[in-house]
Amino acid sequence: MRGVLQLRTPQSDSEQPELARVEPAPTAPKVRFRDSQIEMAHGAGGKASRRLVEGLFAPLLFGSNPEPLTDAARVAVGSDSVAITTDSFVVSPLSFPGGSIGELAINGTVNDLAVSGATAEAIVVTFILEAGLPTSVLESEVRAMADAACRANVKVVGGDTKVVEHGKADLMYVTTTGIGSPIPNLTIDPRSVRVGDKVLLSGPIGDHGITILLARGELDIEAQLRSDTRSVFPFVEAVSKVAAPGIRWMRDPTRGGVATSLNELARDCGLGIHIAEEELPVHDEVRGACELLGLDPLHIANEGQFLAVVAPDYAEAALAAMHEIPGGKEARLIGEFREQPSATVLVGTRYGGTRVIDMLVGDPLPRIC
Amino acid sequence: MRGVLQLRTPQSDSEQPELARVEPAPTAPKVRFRDSQIEMAHGAGGKASRRLVEGLFAPLLFGSNPEPLTDAARVAVGSDSVAITTDSFVVSPLSFPGGSIGELAINGTVNDLAVSGATAEAIVVTFILEAGLPTSVLESEVRAMADAACRANVKVVGGDTKVVEHGKADLMYVTTTGIGSPIPNLTIDPRSVRVGDKVLLSGPIGDHGITILLARGELDIEAQLRSDTRSVFPFVEAVSKVAAPGIRWMRDPTRGGVATSLNELARDCGLGIHIAEEELPVHDEVRGACELLGLDPLHIANEGQFLAVVAPDYAEAALAAMHEIPGGKEARLIGEFREQPSATVLVGTRYGGTRVIDMLVGDPLPRIC
Repeated sequence: MRGVLQLRTPQSDSEQPELARVEPAPTAPKVRFRDSQIEMAHGAGGKASRRLVEGLFAPLLFGSNPEPLTDAARVAVGSDSVAITTDSFVVSPLSFPGGSIGELAINGTVNDLAVSGATAEAIVVTFILEAGLPTSVLESEVRAMADAACRANVKVVGGDTKVVEHGKADLMYVTTTGIGSPIPNLTIDPRSVRVGDKVLLSGPIGDHGITILLARGELDIEAQLRSDTRSVFPFVEAVSKVAAPGIRWMRDPTRGGVATSLNELARDCGLGIHIAEEELPVHDEVRGACELLGLDPLHIANEGQFLAVVAPDYAEAALAAMHEIPGGKEARLIGEFREQPSATVLVGTRYGGTRVIDMLVGDPLPRIC
Repeated sequence: MRGVLQLRTPQSDSEQPELARVEPAPTAPKVRFRDSQIEMAHGAGGKASRRLVEGLFAPLLFGSNPEPLTDAARVAVGSDSVAITTDSFVVSPLSFPGGSIGELAINGTVNDLAVSGATAEAIVVTFILEAGLPTSVLESEVRAMADAACRANVKVVGGDTKVVEHGKADLMYVTTTGIGSPIPNLTIDPRSVRVGDKVLLSGPIGDHGITILLARGELDIEAQLRSDTRSVFPFVEAVSKVAAPGIRWMRDPTRGGVATSLNELARDCGLGIHIAEEELPVHDEVRGACELLGLDPLHIANEGQFLAVVAPDYAEAALAAMHEIPGGKEARLIGEFREQPSATVLVGTRYGGTRVIDMLVGDPLPRIC
């Protein structure tokens, strides 16, 4: 799950003064977020989310000079570095083909740790339940969490429950927080990306977002589509084994889709990302629904895909390793980094043209995770 | 904040088989929670909450043999032990005399770590916001969090934001998760409590719960009462300095009040706890409101009080140390442990009688934290 408020803690004192790391700025920081109220788009993971984070949360909570956005923060505890990530899940409907909120919550947290270069060690969970929720629904989601945690080899070690009045939580909201231990010899930093680096993608995009949309029954489309929710840790592990020194950046492209993840990266590294549209794996059902709705599969959320940027010398080995992972057969090299156009993502179409693809703007598919 | 789902991870292999620690039980565990739907009482921190945790969450998520409930789990990361705790906050109204949801969320998490014997190192936060929330309200709560974190000397290192439709989150819900490093030479275990041990309390009880009740304006009472929300870490630190070897157990008595915390302890240690009612510090406003509503101040939530059980030889030094902490002037020795009645909390009244005081049953004051 792409956390929209997540900021990396500075890794060394030279990057940021100690004061800003430990305390909020001594004088009230200036907030530049000018929207007068919160809209659905602020939770969609795209441009509006980023504005909210950079214009309101970051100045108040992190001081004026935050690091690039990442999926998990690093904290020193004792002599060790601990990765920590947190996400709330508000998906509607609670269950859908291929998964449910409980499974999503575990996998999303495992994935945020994984793409930050950490192995999930433990998860804590809170439930906000609405009065009147059938126990059977709760039990089913708790079982889904237990099963997903078992598959991902992570322990659930504690949690909390709150109950609100009927109608005030859309059945249930779930928040999961995970801590993990860093994978040795792996450094993930968007600023380490160089011209010529390759972009790898684990498989078909958009399945999760479109599955949720169809599960709501608002569209008269029948499709055999399932959410791709799963742990992407096996991809991280496999790629790390064969290409650790060449790995620059990893991400699970959730809210806002592949386009938003790559735009964030382009902005952070300053380079141009050239994506070959014909290399993008997209299921026909997703393509069809997107055409009908005027959406781009690159903007649709995934819950089990893995994006990696690797140095050119490591691309072949990394891709081969991804192919060996269950669910990784369709992994592809989808693009590369060039000097120009700076801080921009370009898609080369199958007809020889190119188009700029921006972050997600607005929120065409709310409440998908 | 007393987390109702929180379970301690077993500290050694001898306490529980490895399987139960790492994976859900291999066969579907028997769930004994028989209520057909979730009610407000399941979130109140009392008997119904405990039934939900022990009958549904624990068997599915932790296996069949959980450890005593604590406020934070311990997880091994690298060579270090990390304390972790999580809580959701759904308080209504969002702000009230003496505090607001943002301040509550930071202090509650710092306090859960503190009473588990850990120093808060970092906090992550998620917001579930409803569409239409005025930005000024959000900004005010983020500022409150930053200020509380600054006062408690803890960093906020990341987070996440989700937005749900108007009406589906009662303005906002906040979830905070904290990690901390264990305070050396401190062991908190209800099973270490012995006959003769003393119960210490930091100050007046019930202020928070009654403040919230009055802030709702449903009662025609005027009172100069403020929530006691604050970090209790200074109490933990002070007591640890002078009495570490004699500290058996600590708790911040939030939902369910002092009575629920002590009943959980009585159950876990098997002894009788004798409380002297006349030693309990209670503000007149709280006493008055409780009399009017037929409630016991011992059942009302606190957000800045500290309960400790210490060996008799250390009680005087611990109490003296508590008196030195700002807000600790009214700290008292309120009771002691006896053999009988087993697993029960008895209150000796000021008229010479005694009465059994149970955990909170039902939920007279919902949505207080």
